[in-house]
Amino acid sequence: MQAMDIEKVNSMDFGEFVDVFGNVIERCPLIAAAVWSQRPFSNLEDLEKHFFDFIDALPQSGREGILRCHPDLAGRELQQGTLSAESRREQSGAGLTSLDADERLRLAELNAQYRARFGFPFVLAARRSHRAAVPRELARRLRCPPAQELRTALAEVRVCPRFIQLQFFTPFAAR
Amino acid sequence: MQAMDIEKVNSMDFGEFVDVFGNVIERCPLIAAAVWSQRPFSNLEDLEKHFFDFIDALPQSGREGILRCHPDLAGRELQQGTLSAESRREQSGAGLTSLDADERLRLAELNAQYRARFGFPFVLAARRSHRAAVPRELARRLRCPPAQELRTALAEVRVCPRFIQLQFFTPFAAR
Repeated sequence: MQAMDIEKVNSMDFGEFVDVFGNVIERCPLIAAAVWSQRPFSNLEDLEKHFFDFIDALPQSGREGILRCHPDLAGRELQQGTLSAESRREQSGAGLTSLDADERLRLAELNAQYRARFGFPFVLAARRSHRAAVPRELARRLRCPPAQELRTALAEVRVCPRFIQLQFFTPFAAR
Repeated sequence: MQAMDIEKVNSMDFGEFVDVFGNVIERCPLIAAAVWSQRPFSNLEDLEKHFFDFIDALPQSGREGILRCHPDLAGRELQQGTLSAESRREQSGAGLTSLDADERLRLAELNAQYRARFGFPFVLAARRSHRAAVPRELARRLRCPPAQELRTALAEVRVCPRFIQLQFFTPFAAR
């Protein structure tokens, strides 16, 4: 599989661009569609930077909204088979598709507590984590102050594997 | 079918809220997810106002991005059956699902010219229009200055039937 070069990215019309980059931020094609206005990009880091700049310029409600577009880890969407391809790959890579009933229940309880406390779902760059680390990290972050936790969760969005340059095109180039 | 009352809306958690209102702005669940931060809403007009305020506060790239998340009228998504339920209903209501080959070709050409000129697709509150009016209106708007056309297109998003109060819950309440 070949990484896309920046000239190819810069030559895309907005339809192609949103097809390829629309889910870099989960269920937020609006962000890719907005970033297209900033082309040409000098390189892939520059493209990433425009995603981050757009997010940083949103009001707090918009940054919270990004988090609310993310699925729970090992939650309803996974059970129902309605995860996006990228989320399915990430949750599967973290072992979250093979939890036993007790682990699923424990995580469902922690997810519910987290949502009730912060008003957005627990977001973790799932590929970096193993299934055993997820409930531990969730329980730890549940105790953080809300303003700090919003920053932490958005930082997780930014270190999502979809943003690590060498892997950047793997999930998308195959489309 | 019963319209939802505002107390019911205000009692929704963010998951329910995004399930119900996530496609009020086509393919932009981020906006509904952000608006949830502003609850409680005093009535449905107040809820609408928060959608509009969020859009108005976006940078120009973000407002263009909203338009880029809309499908062409009688375009690829309609042919491929990948329109959202709301868009399918609107395009069908405007008679765009029963164009003959010549009408489809004419509209495809105009859509392509429009996208090339403005960098976003032609958006029209489809239910208000009849199939005969669409290419005429498209040809007229193709000649408008870009800054004016961006305002016009966003005004169409705002008068979309999804925002007319009495119809507001019809497409969503059935879910």
